[in-house]
Amino acid sequence: MSPNPVRSTTAVEVRYAETDQMGVVHHANYLVWFELARTRLCTLSGFHYHQIEDLGYHLMVTACQVEYRRGAHYGETLEIDAWLADLASRRLRFAYEVRRGVEVLATGLTEHVWVEAASGRLCRTPEPLREPFARLATPSVDALS
Amino acid sequence: MSPNPVRSTTAVEVRYAETDQMGVVHHANYLVWFELARTRLCTLSGFHYHQIEDLGYHLMVTACQVEYRRGAHYGETLEIDAWLADLASRRLRFAYEVRRGVEVLATGLTEHVWVEAASGRLCRTPEPLREPFARLATPSVDALS
Amino acid sequence: MSPNPVRSTTAVEVRYAETDQMGVVHHANYLVWFELARTRLCTLSGFHYHQIEDLGYHLMVTACQVEYRRGAHYGETLEIDAWLADLASRRLRFAYEVRRGVEVLATGLTEHVWVEAASGRLCRTPEPLREPFARLATPSVDALS
Amino acid sequence: MSPNPVRSTTAVEVRYAETDQMGVVHHANYLVWFELARTRLCTLSGFHYHQIEDLGYHLMVTACQVEYRRGAHYGETLEIDAWLADLASRRLRFAYEVRRGVEVLATGLTEHVWVEAASGRLCRTPEPLREPFARLATPSVDALS
Repeated sequence: MSPNPVRSTTAVEVRYAETDQMGVVHHANYLVWFELARTRLCTLSGFHYHQIEDLGYHLMVTACQVEYRRGAHYGETLEIDAWLADLASRRLRFAYEVRRGVEVLATGLTEHVWVEAASGRLCRTPEPLREPFARLATPSVDALS
Repeated sequence: MSPNPVRSTTAVEVRYAETDQMGVVHHANYLVWFELARTRLCTLSGFHYHQIEDLGYHLMVTACQVEYRRGAHYGETLEIDAWLADLASRRLRFAYEVRRGVEVLATGLTEHVWVEAASGRLCRTPEPLREPFARLATPSVDALS
Repeated sequence: MSPNPVRSTTAVEVRYAETDQMGVVHHANYLVWFELARTRLCTLSGFHYHQIEDLGYHLMVTACQVEYRRGAHYGETLEIDAWLADLASRRLRFAYEVRRGVEVLATGLTEHVWVEAASGRLCRTPEPLREPFARLATPSVDALS
Repeated sequence: MSPNPVRSTTAVEVRYAETDQMGVVHHANYLVWFELARTRLCTLSGFHYHQIEDLGYHLMVTACQVEYRRGAHYGETLEIDAWLADLASRRLRFAYEVRRGVEVLATGLTEHVWVEAASGRLCRTPEPLREPFARLATPSVDALS
């Protein structure tokens, strides 16, 4: 992988409904934020994820990990970074960082496989997405092409 | 309508994730509980709602109302009643009551129309569901048939 | 009420997790969006809602209504307007409109009472919030004062 | 650890709101189900988790992992097993398995630390919970005592 994959940054305003009775954001919501950040990152490839679905493919989640360092609170606006941490022909890994200013609140990973929607079968990176995703992983591909 | 439509009762254990920082269940979750109770009620017609979707129809929500009287708390198990409050050829209304023991915590209504999934067009009650839903609305239909 | 209460407008990017298997945003999420829009509106009074809670009060939801006209989809960015539709000494009603461009997707209302957090008792509009909320309801109050 | 920690089993009926437009349960909901299963397991220690909070402590989530093998669908009732996979004086790890009949749909882990609610500081297992949690980890403690 490139030492510097493309990073997207997404601002998220904490919603009251996302808090729980501990007074912080419930931990499951970080996965929803990661997905929002992943959507933004995909857009930087030139394809909104809904366009990827329109092509007939899903990026199915096969695993996730989150490490929570500090709680997030209602009234805060956070930043979520997302980048492509690993890109193989059939499997991708995205990484995430949730920040409040310079403080890192949480980090995470999600793993995905490509699925052909019609058949439900696993597949390789769909042809129209190969170069766009390669550029997310290794921006210098752009310079070489 | 019959004075005594069929009532389903569904037990719901409050989930921690459903609470918010006020220390009670966030008000949006009642709509999710209503849907769970509506699923149970549909089952009493002889069709699980996923079977209704398999027939090619959706019961699309067009309106909802909730009145909240008392908060619900993590650690409580509640009962949700649902019944068919109004049944017309193209439009249904379900009613709901959320209870903790004998205390009523909330009441609500949802309105729905039938939609043909393939075309996205509104339609009348699908033929195979007419009698089953009529029986939910007026149990005595059963005795008459 | 003033014919022209202050309106806040909040952009919301539809999240994948907000969709359901009908392929549209699940109807319960509109209440979450209304809350986000209400937070924005409160901010226009000079108080973020978390500051209102810090003063020792909650705006507890006692009722809600939503009318759904058209579905919202993943990949869309919507606008939610919120305004104070009714302001009494002990009870408020907010109104909402969800739009995709010029199309109205949904409208709604929520009713609230003031609660003193420490005692859990209903109360009148907290003194520091009276003028700020009156200005939301009737902007001309500003000109008169 | 004991080779056979106490296992709780919790039945979960998939809610329509838990599905997304892929037609399966959205992956974030598994964390909510894990929490429900963890609540059940805590109850087997003799303390409902809300009683643990009443004692003045939180079991704060510091990390989670999920592996997703197969999708879950609306209309299915699943079983979630939870058990205490690791118990140290300041840190716990719970493990989970989500099944549909004999098929394993997902497995997961969550890590937690004890927090004193009043101060927000990390602490050791609260004294009243030491023996009950030790019994969850190693049922034979019971026989020995």
